[in-house]
Amino acid sequence: MKRAVVLLSGGLDSATVLAYALARKYEVYTVSFDYGQSHRVELKRSAALSENSGAMKHFEVKLDPRPFQNSALTGRAGVPVGRNLDEMGAGIAPTYVPARNTVFLSFGLAFGEELGARDIFIGVNSLDYSGYPDCRPQFIDAFEKTANLGTSAADGGEPFVIHAPLLTMTKARIVALGTELGVDYSQTVSCYQADEEGRACGLCDACQLRRDGFIQAGIEDPTSYR
Amino acid sequence: MKRAVVLLSGGLDSATVLAYALARKYEVYTVSFDYGQSHRVELKRSAALSENSGAMKHFEVKLDPRPFQNSALTGRAGVPVGRNLDEMGAGIAPTYVPARNTVFLSFGLAFGEELGARDIFIGVNSLDYSGYPDCRPQFIDAFEKTANLGTSAADGGEPFVIHAPLLTMTKARIVALGTELGVDYSQTVSCYQADEEGRACGLCDACQLRRDGFIQAGIEDPTSYR
Repeated sequence: MKRAVVLLSGGLDSATVLAYALARKYEVYTVSFDYGQSHRVELKRSAALSENSGAMKHFEVKLDPRPFQNSALTGRAGVPVGRNLDEMGAGIAPTYVPARNTVFLSFGLAFGEELGARDIFIGVNSLDYSGYPDCRPQFIDAFEKTANLGTSAADGGEPFVIHAPLLTMTKARIVALGTELGVDYSQTVSCYQADEEGRACGLCDACQLRRDGFIQAGIEDPTSYR
Repeated sequence: MKRAVVLLSGGLDSATVLAYALARKYEVYTVSFDYGQSHRVELKRSAALSENSGAMKHFEVKLDPRPFQNSALTGRAGVPVGRNLDEMGAGIAPTYVPARNTVFLSFGLAFGEELGARDIFIGVNSLDYSGYPDCRPQFIDAFEKTANLGTSAADGGEPFVIHAPLLTMTKARIVALGTELGVDYSQTVSCYQADEEGRACGLCDACQLRRDGFIQAGIEDPTSYR
């Protein structure tokens, strides 16, 4: 059984990727990151999603929060709410976290070396909303090349593959895929300002994209709004 | 004054890079990493080197040690001693730490985004000893490309530059350069099994390369051996 590392944030996308990797019969190790995000509930949800999914083991990794302060997600500025999709697409997102996915993937890689897993899964998506440079195909490709030059893969080891199966899917398609795979989306939290029980605001960018996804997929939205 | 991030390990190479960046008039922020290495003294030495150098601020970043266990430096196996240079060059080094420089550079990048520093310095060296894939030019180039695709640099921000000024220097040339720049090498620790006072074993790969460097540079070796 091939091992895989799945990066997990407790949201809709990464929960779908977890189900996707398990459906492909990987022995899955999940990793989530505490980088000082204000929506702490996602860490609990990640652990629960992993446990309920049949993954082998979950790692919650605490990162020094100091380099990740300049973001609406760690509290330096308010989370934008009530924006339309055009506004979301203009420039870098206020919810971009400095080099976050580079750090997350690097840890994924280190866990991969440690566990003998050469397949690293990440739930990035570049279609819905392009304000995150570290969610685009060219970044994922470049990281994979870097990974294969900077690890045992460069010296005859099996190459790493960075899997980003949702990269070019619409949110509606992701919801449809996850539903087919049996993901219980009521247990996922996408909201940037979810409360401690995981109830969503319904107004932030993440909430809007998520709700639109369910609507366009024609699937009932199980999200708990406050 | 341009800001720079300098990754610091407390050893000869990174101390030289620190002096190099300061000589180029950067406002320098140093970062060192606690990844569970058994030679803990390097963390103290890094902080002291930074403080004595005129750097603006030092960050000691604690990393979750779990993905970094499969290395002689974190205790899974003994540090090799008494090997000759031919043996050192064969295959991946037992002292390679899983994806270490990828993780370190990712954090350097996040600090760069946070501090407004676009110049990241790292003391990697590929000549003396090639058993570390994450110390080679092609890895550094690939990481720089990744950095510029996965950060604000991709959306009109100033590009990041990963500076690895020692990349193709011999240890002798590094020692000569640092001596010219006023580095006090007695305060640096290269040994993989240094004791708490920073005294070196004189036998491990790092000790051998360091000692040969001083000999070939014709500069007195101030290393404290036990």
